[in-house]
Amino acid sequence: MTSISRDQALALDAADPLAPLGRLFDLPAGKIYLDGNSLGVLPRATAARVQQVVTQEWGQDLIGSWNSAGWMLLPQRIGDKIARLVGAGAGELVVADSTSVNLFKVLSAALSIVRQDAPQRRVILSERSNFPTDLYIAEALARERGFELVLADADELPGRLDSRVAVLMLTHVNYRTGRMHDMARLTRAAHAAGAMALWDLAHSAGAVPVDLHAADADFAIGCGYKYLNGGPGAPAFVWVHPRHTERFWQPLAGWMGHAAPFEFTPGYRPAAGISRYLCGTPPVLSLAALECGVDTLLAAEPHGGMAALRAKSLALTRLFAAEVEARCAGQGLNLASPADDAQRGSQVCLARDEGAYAIVQALIARGAIGDFRAGDGAGLPDILRFGFTPLYTRYVDAWDAVHHLHEVLVNEEWRRPEFNRRHAVT
Amino acid sequence: MTSISRDQALALDAADPLAPLGRLFDLPAGKIYLDGNSLGVLPRATAARVQQVVTQEWGQDLIGSWNSAGWMLLPQRIGDKIARLVGAGAGELVVADSTSVNLFKVLSAALSIVRQDAPQRRVILSERSNFPTDLYIAEALARERGFELVLADADELPGRLDSRVAVLMLTHVNYRTGRMHDMARLTRAAHAAGAMALWDLAHSAGAVPVDLHAADADFAIGCGYKYLNGGPGAPAFVWVHPRHTERFWQPLAGWMGHAAPFEFTPGYRPAAGISRYLCGTPPVLSLAALECGVDTLLAAEPHGGMAALRAKSLALTRLFAAEVEARCAGQGLNLASPADDAQRGSQVCLARDEGAYAIVQALIARGAIGDFRAGDGAGLPDILRFGFTPLYTRYVDAWDAVHHLHEVLVNEEWRRPEFNRRHAVT
Repeated sequence: MTSISRDQALALDAADPLAPLGRLFDLPAGKIYLDGNSLGVLPRATAARVQQVVTQEWGQDLIGSWNSAGWMLLPQRIGDKIARLVGAGAGELVVADSTSVNLFKVLSAALSIVRQDAPQRRVILSERSNFPTDLYIAEALARERGFELVLADADELPGRLDSRVAVLMLTHVNYRTGRMHDMARLTRAAHAAGAMALWDLAHSAGAVPVDLHAADADFAIGCGYKYLNGGPGAPAFVWVHPRHTERFWQPLAGWMGHAAPFEFTPGYRPAAGISRYLCGTPPVLSLAALECGVDTLLAAEPHGGMAALRAKSLALTRLFAAEVEARCAGQGLNLASPADDAQRGSQVCLARDEGAYAIVQALIARGAIGDFRAGDGAGLPDILRFGFTPLYTRYVDAWDAVHHLHEVLVNEEWRRPEFNRRHAVT
Repeated sequence: MTSISRDQALALDAADPLAPLGRLFDLPAGKIYLDGNSLGVLPRATAARVQQVVTQEWGQDLIGSWNSAGWMLLPQRIGDKIARLVGAGAGELVVADSTSVNLFKVLSAALSIVRQDAPQRRVILSERSNFPTDLYIAEALARERGFELVLADADELPGRLDSRVAVLMLTHVNYRTGRMHDMARLTRAAHAAGAMALWDLAHSAGAVPVDLHAADADFAIGCGYKYLNGGPGAPAFVWVHPRHTERFWQPLAGWMGHAAPFEFTPGYRPAAGISRYLCGTPPVLSLAALECGVDTLLAAEPHGGMAALRAKSLALTRLFAAEVEARCAGQGLNLASPADDAQRGSQVCLARDEGAYAIVQALIARGAIGDFRAGDGAGLPDILRFGFTPLYTRYVDAWDAVHHLHEVLVNEEWRRPEFNRRHAVT
């Protein structure tokens, strides 16, 4: 692999048609932020919008804002915007609760529908290295409902789709490795085996093109605070294919999912369509911030939208991986993400036997922010994780990050004690 | 009933030792706000605090704020503050999700524990006019778990506590009438019958003194956006008596309730104590606003705390009810809230056979904001609902509201067409 010069990286930025979109963000001063897959950066519009909601809509207009400021329809309005990013139709997707709670809803729905249609199917099939919270929810729900959670490695999944499988539950882009499943192919395989396909888009929505309808997916959920730039703990989203939406009403039968929430009638009557997947009153301040984040992605539509963002994302991850290979050779780093573009999300992960945590801390001290994910002490290695957000990440950021990584390694900066103390959140 | 003069009302405010607490709020200009039981007003500290979270903690410090700004511990930190308002111990209460989702958690816990201890008990007993979302959640969960939801009128409840009842699930202060249950007495009755007691504090926390431990309650949930002034859709709270906390792990087994969320281990291992009732990543902006709201109530502690607030609340509701009786006699209004102080929460509801909705709209047009709750066309009447928040409601506000109510009625302002058009949110 040959390296490029920093000037060449700057030239790539100068020629980048998406570069002006970076001005939509208040980027942190003096930092190279490659952790947008954990928490997206602050859009420039957000602070003023949140302040407007706080001081005017809440402070002055108070309860009237449920009507006059459209608070009641925020889950659907923002949902329709996210739908455009993931190949869903208008009215099919809502913003609500957290990713975990939404997974509980759609997995409950899937299991209830299967119980009617194919009661002999008792298995939830997922990937061994799926995001743990998804596995926790599935494990608890499987136990509650008399199903079995079966885990397999990614490559084994198609072969494990047999007549016992009720639901194939996968995260589209793996949180550790950035490996991206072929959603259409696996959904076809699930359907061919008589199972449903449920997709977690936490590391996909706003990061890679997703087309839920083209893939004929059954259920999807996703996260608001990663590539959607919705702010810390932003509400999540939930999508159900219209063929399933009204077959189920969920145990989280809160009033916002009722057909007529303000009639206050004693019996639950689920709303038509996806609105029945709402539950309690949504956190309006966090919703307002999420809408600003989603708008930053829609601002890319005149520039080619998700396809253009994907092209830049691949260029960024290719550049980063190539620079690491060229400039950090012999430093014990191994690419843990797929080299094949088609299988790689918008992140690059590097495995290292020793010091991965401390290296990340040393990089943070230099203003180059990625994160660390621990291995399992068995086959799974410790990794350094770098997320690339083509809306605001520049080619020179990728280049500079490798420079810092090289310095941290060749100077053994990471061995300093202060980089080896563990924090609660890594 | 005799009326007092407006000057007498002003004199009560001048003599009110809690009056300075009103300065903790940005009250809406030119409005008499008697709807804090639906959405509390904006505390003066909130806008700056939310802005700090957005621009500094998120915008500049980004992912590092989970550690450096203490985001990880917000659910527990704010929970400990709310605990002081409801007679719970430190470490026993967390902020999470919505009231509806939290009800699902604690009711799931109660049913699971009963299934172990007393499997013959299959009834969830609640009040017919409980808040509908509570009944929806209970109805759905009862169906899912093979329980039966039985509804009774408030006065019948003690007589319905028999050997079939697993859980007595009640809202402490009724959302329609403001009638307050005797929590200690009903909890004792439930325990004597071998059932558990689950309390929804939506209209109690921050409004009336609550002592969960003195009442020996089993479970409680509550709302952040009413008397806690946490802002629209603020996250809710959940409390579990320590004798039950670790007997259950919930089906909403999200990573924030895991013993070691950042180890990303595949099997769920619930956290010690109440933290296992957390699920997904919490909405940090909304949490920050909630903390400011809770702080406004803690600011009353040097002034006598909840006992002093309760005394003022009763004085306000007594004054309002007496003024209505004296000045609006013959206008078809009937007090729908208990006249007995001990049975009345912090609101006054008035029933009227005709025009209740339009009267509320006409009052809003005059800047006097209460709300409307529809009857059921059968026994339950339409009501006008007025909430009193002793932190910021003045005696003269109560007096002026009755003045406007009188004007709307004697001039028949409410008959105007514009006051008879229905909004989505009432």
